[in-house]
Amino acid sequence: MYASSIDVRKPWSHPNASYWDSFTLATWMSQQNLTSPLQALLDTVIPTVLSAEPGELSFLYTLSYIAAAGNETHPGTFARLVGTTDGAQESRIVGGTGLLTYGLADQIGRHRTFLNTTVQKITKVSNVYYVRTSNRDYIATNIVVAMSPPLASRIHYEPPVSAQRDQLTQRMFMASIGKATAIYDAPFWRQANLTGQVLSDTGVVRSTFDVSPADGRYGAILGLMEADQMRALDQSTETEIKDLVVKDYVRYFGPQASKVSEWVIQRWDNELYSRGGPVAIAGPGTISKYGSSLRRCEGNIYWAGTESSDYWVGYMSGALKAGKLAANKILDSRL
Amino acid sequence: MYASSIDVRKPWSHPNASYWDSFTLATWMSQQNLTSPLQALLDTVIPTVLSAEPGELSFLYTLSYIAAAGNETHPGTFARLVGTTDGAQESRIVGGTGLLTYGLADQIGRHRTFLNTTVQKITKVSNVYYVRTSNRDYIATNIVVAMSPPLASRIHYEPPVSAQRDQLTQRMFMASIGKATAIYDAPFWRQANLTGQVLSDTGVVRSTFDVSPADGRYGAILGLMEADQMRALDQSTETEIKDLVVKDYVRYFGPQASKVSEWVIQRWDNELYSRGGPVAIAGPGTISKYGSSLRRCEGNIYWAGTESSDYWVGYMSGALKAGKLAANKILDSRL
Repeated sequence: MYASSIDVRKPWSHPNASYWDSFTLATWMSQQNLTSPLQALLDTVIPTVLSAEPGELSFLYTLSYIAAAGNETHPGTFARLVGTTDGAQESRIVGGTGLLTYGLADQIGRHRTFLNTTVQKITKVSNVYYVRTSNRDYIATNIVVAMSPPLASRIHYEPPVSAQRDQLTQRMFMASIGKATAIYDAPFWRQANLTGQVLSDTGVVRSTFDVSPADGRYGAILGLMEADQMRALDQSTETEIKDLVVKDYVRYFGPQASKVSEWVIQRWDNELYSRGGPVAIAGPGTISKYGSSLRRCEGNIYWAGTESSDYWVGYMSGALKAGKLAANKILDSRL
Repeated sequence: MYASSIDVRKPWSHPNASYWDSFTLATWMSQQNLTSPLQALLDTVIPTVLSAEPGELSFLYTLSYIAAAGNETHPGTFARLVGTTDGAQESRIVGGTGLLTYGLADQIGRHRTFLNTTVQKITKVSNVYYVRTSNRDYIATNIVVAMSPPLASRIHYEPPVSAQRDQLTQRMFMASIGKATAIYDAPFWRQANLTGQVLSDTGVVRSTFDVSPADGRYGAILGLMEADQMRALDQSTETEIKDLVVKDYVRYFGPQASKVSEWVIQRWDNELYSRGGPVAIAGPGTISKYGSSLRRCEGNIYWAGTESSDYWVGYMSGALKAGKLAANKILDSRL
């Protein structure tokens, strides 16, 4: 597979980077003489992995995303991206993912953590940065902007960032994703020896996971709405979405699936500070021309967020890695 | 040609829109069995017309851009886009293009025109919009945002714009362009019966125009730096650029071209309120999925700018047309 020849620290330096970045994943697929079941499988799997259709994705970007699904000793593979066992979808955090951010905030110190505070402008005056927020101003000597490139562009920088960095932020865009979690009195599918895990080529929810608590005291099915399916429902009411999703769940798990006791619907496309998800992706002509600006600091402004990671771009693991990379650069600059 | 089948008011409604928007112009070109001179010609012409490489452009977007190079009775053609006589490059404004904006400001009234005033936030409270700028606040019942989509996204909207509109602004990006105008004591090339107009497949400037005043009291050659050529020079000094460009001009017009009396270098990529140019363009997966948000108002916020026009998208004519379309919508809403 091509992905193994890509250096995750600089996919743009690959000898074929410019060529691979001049066409879409859809174009590549159409040239492989895929059997129609394989074509259908990829058309189904790609949106569940990248929350985008093959026609939105640069082939180079897709390869670099696959290459990033590994580490220094285990090159990334497509299997690890899509896989549950030993793959990207293996683990959940007991108690909920939110605990991660609370844990980080505790380490930093809650008194140093400011919530509901929107950064509006970052102004450099000699060697000091003034950060204007919706609440108050801050002064800093180093700044880590841990946001997706499209959202980072909505902060005003003075002096402006380089043309390269700005163009990168203009070109990368958030994928489209939402979730619909149905809560049941019990994880009834387990009695039928079903895993609760689905991959489907129809429906508004085409992939599901059993997210019931480990002790099974209640049941929960998480379904993802992605790419074209999510886009079509960005403007719908939650009632309309529930009506559509429950039909999918009955089709997947039987009539008991209609007895939902509670719903959790979340559409990141509509969230002011997400505007899509789970990650900013790239069409043709982005990574080969501007990829090096993903991690190149501008003055003492360092860029983090999962898009800036080398490994596990698009995942929480990548976000943590990118944060550490940025922090280490700041520490190095002080030596 | 496919372009003639496209409705410029809604290219996304074409039966092939989704397919044509799943690959790049480069992909289409590679499938045409072009002779290598024709391939080279297109590789040269495309950046001079769209300020982008074929591998950055959606095929659907390119078709709609061509379709827009006309009017209700004359369908757009590629020839009119690239042409001088009877084409997009035919006319200049005596006295300079800036006169257009001064003329418009005079019509509106200078006391109603606010310069050096950056709009930061637009907040809707019941039926009134509060516009916060870098200087003072304004109140309005209708707003026309006449900016390119990527720059319009840097204003904060409360309530937020729809997911569709936001995604459009995330995906469209400014092309890359700059100009290098060399001023000479006289338009010396005219003595040799040269037009001063060049199209070249090498050099940092690959297209030039004679922009001397009509009476020829001095000479001026305007050269455009576009796409990959411009990107490569975004960070260069003006001296470096002049040194490169003068080599091109000597190659095109002979040794006299080295005697430049004055230079005007302008790189829109580096301008805070342009960030590229001349227009925001689209890669695959943008126009078919989000194009309808180019012109759809959000509450009483109307979108203008040349990207929102039906005809002559990318040109001043399109910008004026889009402004009129928006103004007419507001007038209609008051009936």
